[in-house]
Amino acid sequence: MTKLWQKDYSMNELVERYEGAQNSILDARLVRHDVWGSLAHAAMLHKIGMLDEQEHQALHEALCSILALDAEKQFHISLSDEDVHTSIENYLSAYAGAAGKKVHTARSRNDQVLVDLRLYGKEQLHQVSEKLFALCQALLTFSHKHQDTPLPGYTHMQRGMLSSVGSWSASFAESLLDDERLLASTYELNDQSPLGSAAGYGVPLPIDRQFVADKLGFARVQNNVIYAQNSRGKTEGAIVQVLTQIMLDLSKLAQDMLLYTTVEYGFLHIPQELCAGSSIMPQKRNLGVMELVRARAQTMLALQQQILGITTGLPSGFNMDYQETKRPFMEALDLVQEALEISELIVSHMDVDVEKAVAACTFELFAADRAYEMAHDGQLPFRDAYRIVGKEVTAQLDSKTPFPVESKEQLVERLHARNHLGGAGNLGIEQAQQRLEQAQTTWKQKAQAFQQAIQTLVGSDHVAIMEIK
Amino acid sequence: MTKLWQKDYSMNELVERYEGAQNSILDARLVRHDVWGSLAHAAMLHKIGMLDEQEHQALHEALCSILALDAEKQFHISLSDEDVHTSIENYLSAYAGAAGKKVHTARSRNDQVLVDLRLYGKEQLHQVSEKLFALCQALLTFSHKHQDTPLPGYTHMQRGMLSSVGSWSASFAESLLDDERLLASTYELNDQSPLGSAAGYGVPLPIDRQFVADKLGFARVQNNVIYAQNSRGKTEGAIVQVLTQIMLDLSKLAQDMLLYTTVEYGFLHIPQELCAGSSIMPQKRNLGVMELVRARAQTMLALQQQILGITTGLPSGFNMDYQETKRPFMEALDLVQEALEISELIVSHMDVDVEKAVAACTFELFAADRAYEMAHDGQLPFRDAYRIVGKEVTAQLDSKTPFPVESKEQLVERLHARNHLGGAGNLGIEQAQQRLEQAQTTWKQKAQAFQQAIQTLVGSDHVAIMEIK
Amino acid sequence: MTKLWQKDYSMNELVERYEGAQNSILDARLVRHDVWGSLAHAAMLHKIGMLDEQEHQALHEALCSILALDAEKQFHISLSDEDVHTSIENYLSAYAGAAGKKVHTARSRNDQVLVDLRLYGKEQLHQVSEKLFALCQALLTFSHKHQDTPLPGYTHMQRGMLSSVGSWSASFAESLLDDERLLASTYELNDQSPLGSAAGYGVPLPIDRQFVADKLGFARVQNNVIYAQNSRGKTEGAIVQVLTQIMLDLSKLAQDMLLYTTVEYGFLHIPQELCAGSSIMPQKRNLGVMELVRARAQTMLALQQQILGITTGLPSGFNMDYQETKRPFMEALDLVQEALEISELIVSHMDVDVEKAVAACTFELFAADRAYEMAHDGQLPFRDAYRIVGKEVTAQLDSKTPFPVESKEQLVERLHARNHLGGAGNLGIEQAQQRLEQAQTTWKQKAQAFQQAIQTLVGSDHVAIMEIK
Amino acid sequence: MTKLWQKDYSMNELVERYEGAQNSILDARLVRHDVWGSLAHAAMLHKIGMLDEQEHQALHEALCSILALDAEKQFHISLSDEDVHTSIENYLSAYAGAAGKKVHTARSRNDQVLVDLRLYGKEQLHQVSEKLFALCQALLTFSHKHQDTPLPGYTHMQRGMLSSVGSWSASFAESLLDDERLLASTYELNDQSPLGSAAGYGVPLPIDRQFVADKLGFARVQNNVIYAQNSRGKTEGAIVQVLTQIMLDLSKLAQDMLLYTTVEYGFLHIPQELCAGSSIMPQKRNLGVMELVRARAQTMLALQQQILGITTGLPSGFNMDYQETKRPFMEALDLVQEALEISELIVSHMDVDVEKAVAACTFELFAADRAYEMAHDGQLPFRDAYRIVGKEVTAQLDSKTPFPVESKEQLVERLHARNHLGGAGNLGIEQAQQRLEQAQTTWKQKAQAFQQAIQTLVGSDHVAIMEIK
Repeated sequence: MTKLWQKDYSMNELVERYEGAQNSILDARLVRHDVWGSLAHAAMLHKIGMLDEQEHQALHEALCSILALDAEKQFHISLSDEDVHTSIENYLSAYAGAAGKKVHTARSRNDQVLVDLRLYGKEQLHQVSEKLFALCQALLTFSHKHQDTPLPGYTHMQRGMLSSVGSWSASFAESLLDDERLLASTYELNDQSPLGSAAGYGVPLPIDRQFVADKLGFARVQNNVIYAQNSRGKTEGAIVQVLTQIMLDLSKLAQDMLLYTTVEYGFLHIPQELCAGSSIMPQKRNLGVMELVRARAQTMLALQQQILGITTGLPSGFNMDYQETKRPFMEALDLVQEALEISELIVSHMDVDVEKAVAACTFELFAADRAYEMAHDGQLPFRDAYRIVGKEVTAQLDSKTPFPVESKEQLVERLHARNHLGGAGNLGIEQAQQRLEQAQTTWKQKAQAFQQAIQTLVGSDHVAIMEIK
Repeated sequence: MTKLWQKDYSMNELVERYEGAQNSILDARLVRHDVWGSLAHAAMLHKIGMLDEQEHQALHEALCSILALDAEKQFHISLSDEDVHTSIENYLSAYAGAAGKKVHTARSRNDQVLVDLRLYGKEQLHQVSEKLFALCQALLTFSHKHQDTPLPGYTHMQRGMLSSVGSWSASFAESLLDDERLLASTYELNDQSPLGSAAGYGVPLPIDRQFVADKLGFARVQNNVIYAQNSRGKTEGAIVQVLTQIMLDLSKLAQDMLLYTTVEYGFLHIPQELCAGSSIMPQKRNLGVMELVRARAQTMLALQQQILGITTGLPSGFNMDYQETKRPFMEALDLVQEALEISELIVSHMDVDVEKAVAACTFELFAADRAYEMAHDGQLPFRDAYRIVGKEVTAQLDSKTPFPVESKEQLVERLHARNHLGGAGNLGIEQAQQRLEQAQTTWKQKAQAFQQAIQTLVGSDHVAIMEIK
Repeated sequence: MTKLWQKDYSMNELVERYEGAQNSILDARLVRHDVWGSLAHAAMLHKIGMLDEQEHQALHEALCSILALDAEKQFHISLSDEDVHTSIENYLSAYAGAAGKKVHTARSRNDQVLVDLRLYGKEQLHQVSEKLFALCQALLTFSHKHQDTPLPGYTHMQRGMLSSVGSWSASFAESLLDDERLLASTYELNDQSPLGSAAGYGVPLPIDRQFVADKLGFARVQNNVIYAQNSRGKTEGAIVQVLTQIMLDLSKLAQDMLLYTTVEYGFLHIPQELCAGSSIMPQKRNLGVMELVRARAQTMLALQQQILGITTGLPSGFNMDYQETKRPFMEALDLVQEALEISELIVSHMDVDVEKAVAACTFELFAADRAYEMAHDGQLPFRDAYRIVGKEVTAQLDSKTPFPVESKEQLVERLHARNHLGGAGNLGIEQAQQRLEQAQTTWKQKAQAFQQAIQTLVGSDHVAIMEIK
Repeated sequence: MTKLWQKDYSMNELVERYEGAQNSILDARLVRHDVWGSLAHAAMLHKIGMLDEQEHQALHEALCSILALDAEKQFHISLSDEDVHTSIENYLSAYAGAAGKKVHTARSRNDQVLVDLRLYGKEQLHQVSEKLFALCQALLTFSHKHQDTPLPGYTHMQRGMLSSVGSWSASFAESLLDDERLLASTYELNDQSPLGSAAGYGVPLPIDRQFVADKLGFARVQNNVIYAQNSRGKTEGAIVQVLTQIMLDLSKLAQDMLLYTTVEYGFLHIPQELCAGSSIMPQKRNLGVMELVRARAQTMLALQQQILGITTGLPSGFNMDYQETKRPFMEALDLVQEALEISELIVSHMDVDVEKAVAACTFELFAADRAYEMAHDGQLPFRDAYRIVGKEVTAQLDSKTPFPVESKEQLVERLHARNHLGGAGNLGIEQAQQRLEQAQTTWKQKAQAFQQAIQTLVGSDHVAIMEIK
């Protein structure tokens, strides 16, 4: 097909490929979002009298037929089309008559791609939140089950103090719940309608930007038209920054799991169906997925760097550089969802080797407890008690006598004594569960409101396809 | 002095330097925060009966005398002290008698440094917000003054459409106001008290974490003790991520200014007092500071990468790696403040060369307008009009006849026609001004509440030093 | 098919997809390399008596039939196969009888993937060098043509001193030739055979690692078996680091071109077949490909970060994290080649607008020249002359009188006066041309030696497919 | 003092500080390098007749007196001076009469800072190589001592195959020796003289660039003057890229050590003088320095990103952004040297707990060996043997019977059977030792040749201070 801007010469093929190859593949994901944006834009052109009823109707029908094609994966974007916007305009020109050539009045591909990515981002963030909550739930369930299972608490990768399996897994749940707060904040940033910014400088036409924003379920119009353009890359970057926070948590979870499933630690057991083997060593059961989660946290950092590196230092107005941020944005959203899913799978299936966990709670974990006891009546200051205990422990460690181990019951008693807020004896799982449920409700409402807006836009005769992948 | 954990041997000097050199310098910034944390902790130990009235009083006085020393830059941290926590405990041991050796009961340096950095972060974010608002104000003032000054709008670094100086500068104000939303969200993440997490595994003592949090003006307790430790680096990373967003805006502002102050563009004029010269070319006036702002946006990205790179993949519990995140965190906060300040200085002093700006608004900027006119009555679809105009313009460009230029008045009329929301004829500066003022009020309240809490903690007899730098 | 390590249970599907989805796609590029490695390994097993003549022959034939399939894109890797190594071993088990099950004796997939990537890297670096040389040639040709075309030399994006188009384009050629040196150095790093390291700990069998290395055309054996494994990611990282150097050059070339093709500068003209248009502004001709080159330099930095970020901090021995470095490695090699190609295309087709270039060589460029003249006889020190000229120029700039412009002939005379080494009057294009040709010869020899080794390995009856893509 | 370009107005103080604060501190390290460059430049000006004998003499003496001041740390750079170049020119103007105002003839601060950083880089790389060799030596010595100490070889952090302590430590030595090759290659890149490029566009004066390059001991002139300027940041980036390779090795060494010194692994023992303690847990002995090495590898990646991020996408010619690359360059060179030093200290003092190492060599390490035995006579293909052994081992693992352990002697016998190139029974330590010594010799020669050139330049009456720090 022809490019929208095409005049009477042909583009060099190498140039065409260099500019369009990646785009035309990625844009397959944006068909429905571009249709939605076009539906809202056409409705607005109709409202302000730039499309008559018939033209509007023709466009609406043709656009909805693209939705139907897309649902069957039958709407294709060719390399010569460059992008989804061109494919759709070409389709409309073919199937909606003159109206098809009018749909681009008062808009630019620049604000189309902006609106497409905002809508895509919303959908994806709804999904991210669901998967994040599923993992939180698995962690809290595990935590509840193992709140009285002792585990050494490590600092500097050395045994430090007594802790519990429940405290360990709840720590990730709380971290993810804090991530949800950040996610909500970038969701808001993303939830503004850029449509009407055109090429970044508006149009000398009486368009109604608020009308379009409302139709598409946006919380507000992104006011300044130059800012709308300049927020390309910036918004994606802000979203991916939060995704790095999630991956940071998962990478820590992964690293802990990889340590705790070694023969040396042995605290956790993962069913072999979730492990990979070796081509040469018959005995191996490797927790490969969590190694990949750990690695992909680094990939996420690179994606964050890519988006922000590309965006930083560009002059105002659209630059084609922004096109290069589309892929890392999509990849980052895929990556975090897959990592959340796989982590949830592992957490739901892992088991604790209680015997090993108890056996690892050796006496040196209680050195500080011992100092507290000595300092308890206030006669001996903590620091002096600390130094006395320090000498005792060092002597014992150096003598290499086997460490005395306490029984599970004794350890549990010690756990219960850590009963201040957030201590192993007072984990606050119920509060975390409540926080989780409230957050879930809020996100579900967001998702539903969005779906409703889109369904209304598309009309009850058509299916507004919302399933992802 | 001695280290807190020191036993009867000496640490290797190279090791001591490798571990402590950077820390002992950076910690000079954290003296008052560590004192505040210690005041709150001591009050709590008193409340739960682990310090008697006299001990508490002795500690309170000794701690306040450190505040006084620090105000005079007379409280020093030696390399052998390792860090501010040790310096202070050593001072207390010397000047508060046995009470000094008791202050560390039920806490660890790990949660001290956490609380210090949270308090430091709060103070700094108050400052960042002030500077961000000052720049916003300068941009809006400039925007208001130049709302009717025409300027070419560029895309792909090529002249695209008519725009205005006012639209350009307001775009940055709106972007920074969106950054403020993200900043507020990380402020909340930072606004939780980690105290009581000890080494990450709590203590078998009936400490009152809520009491301490309230004393220090925190919004809430960070519940899970392992999460409290694991959020080291994570919180700093989240804050720096938002700072990168601010720097991204400033880098764009810088790049635009550097272009607009070239001989070739010539739209902006900066007084020579704000420029640098050349050692070899007598004529040069370089806008060096904005080149540095552009460069330091990249530095900010590197600081973000450093903090998150260090933090990602570490196992649970404190690891000394976290120590290495302190410096980039402090540098990032300095960097953004200096960049905001210098940008505000430049924006407040820059001038527009209106003649050049008008002269640059050449006819090709109106090609799309022309297509809209042709398509206006609905007879000719936009895409057809576009193609006709395209041929006309190309012919004119190729003929190399000088471009016809419109008068400023004609251009202003065109600007006014872009009167949809956020267009050059409807910038919405008043709304932006309102948003700015509301945000300012909110942040001032946060800062005051914090200062009040600290003043109450320190007591009316002592000055709680809050000035920064 | 079955996995190599498969026992009597099935892997969870989500796990299978998480681990294998990316790999099974990427490995389609590594079929021939894996075959070559297997051919060499089989020959060695035969040499040391672990395969008899018949078995060796059967393996050789079956492996060569995979080459033939791959040449037709008919050798497929299914998700359940996990990777190319498994696909091939399964194929051999099916088509080479018992010998197929013996080919994995004394090796591991870990050293297979290492050897595959080394061979892939060699092939790709041969291609990278070719494309780099083609761009160098285009730049030198352009430089030769325009050695007497004046151009302002910029510093701080401000006009600084007189320069020439030829000097400008030759600067990129010399930079790329320096990159070639770095490329050669990582080529050497890559040019060592890891085969025989097995899973990183060798095998208790009398394998002949030197024999295998020779067969595959490697310069040497990578000795220590643990190091061989630990160099996964490291080698790829080192290669990509050099690719970032190339992209850094291209990003500068891109940025210059984007400036020089603006209306404001106007020094360069690019045929419209190489430009992109706008969907809304009929007049636009955007040099989109060079914007993408600029953006992809940032992508390259992110790929470098990804590989090194994943690799840094991993413990010794294979970790599945390394798998995640395969994709950025391949992408980086693609990216640099496409960017070199597109840059070469643009350089070969660009034209100088000599009139505009001359007109831009305004009098302030000669301020330093003027100071030199005043200081020439040694009476007036340079710094004093500088200050006098400085005042003159400032006065003239402030008076806003139009700048006097010299004729092209006068400018050329000035250019010729810069006749020291590397000056605009003494560019040294011939020497650069010689350096280029020598480098070309060296790389061609490397490529031929490699192809010869592989052809010998495969045997004269079979085609050793060497064409890329 | 005054700035070189200062005219009759004062620079805004905030601007002065923003531009100069960092520079004036960092430049304290560059005094002698700037003097050397000036000595060579003055000699050249004398040679071509632009300075008479007396002037040359006056400059030479004044410059040497700066060297003497600098040796006593008595040469200061004030903020108002901006940089070392200005300080020195101001000093010369004061102490060498009119000649002082002539020294800047035919040069720019831009090429001064380039030459300073090249000379600084050379000195530093000499030091880096020394420290790298010292660590290599410690690793090889350790490896030699422990070549017969068994150790489990890990893959996926799980016990995989039998290996040895010697093989483990030699792997790092070989990796570092490969890094040396990369280091040599960037050393060459750095070893070209930029002097004479002036502001990047040469000078209309008959300067002799080769003469200056020879005087300063450079291997060659960097020919194209624009390229000379454009290589700012690029060269530093290339050097730091190699430093990341070194840190990557050290981070792996660190991670292994941190694992091997846990209670759970317990293979390595580090004297307590090299460890840090805890403020709360009396028993702790943390290998903090290696945690910092691990963290600082990430810092190095960030420094690499900073330099390359700043440099990428800048237009040709000097931009002040480059100034921002000076600090990360210097920090990276410091960082790697300190990390090499501390690693060498730890390696030289660490001990193996042979008993624990032997005990960890449990039966599953020999599963592959067992499969090889079964497959040995060629009757049973490896893959079939693998599957049989796989079932045996799984059964044993699942039965949780204690693992049979072989004696150290049996294990050593097994190690000796891995006698192929680079296997545990054939480590090739002597060859590595030879490689090390050859590399040492080459680098010493480079360092000496450089020192000789500088001493000749300074003259026998003066001390050319070469000690670093």
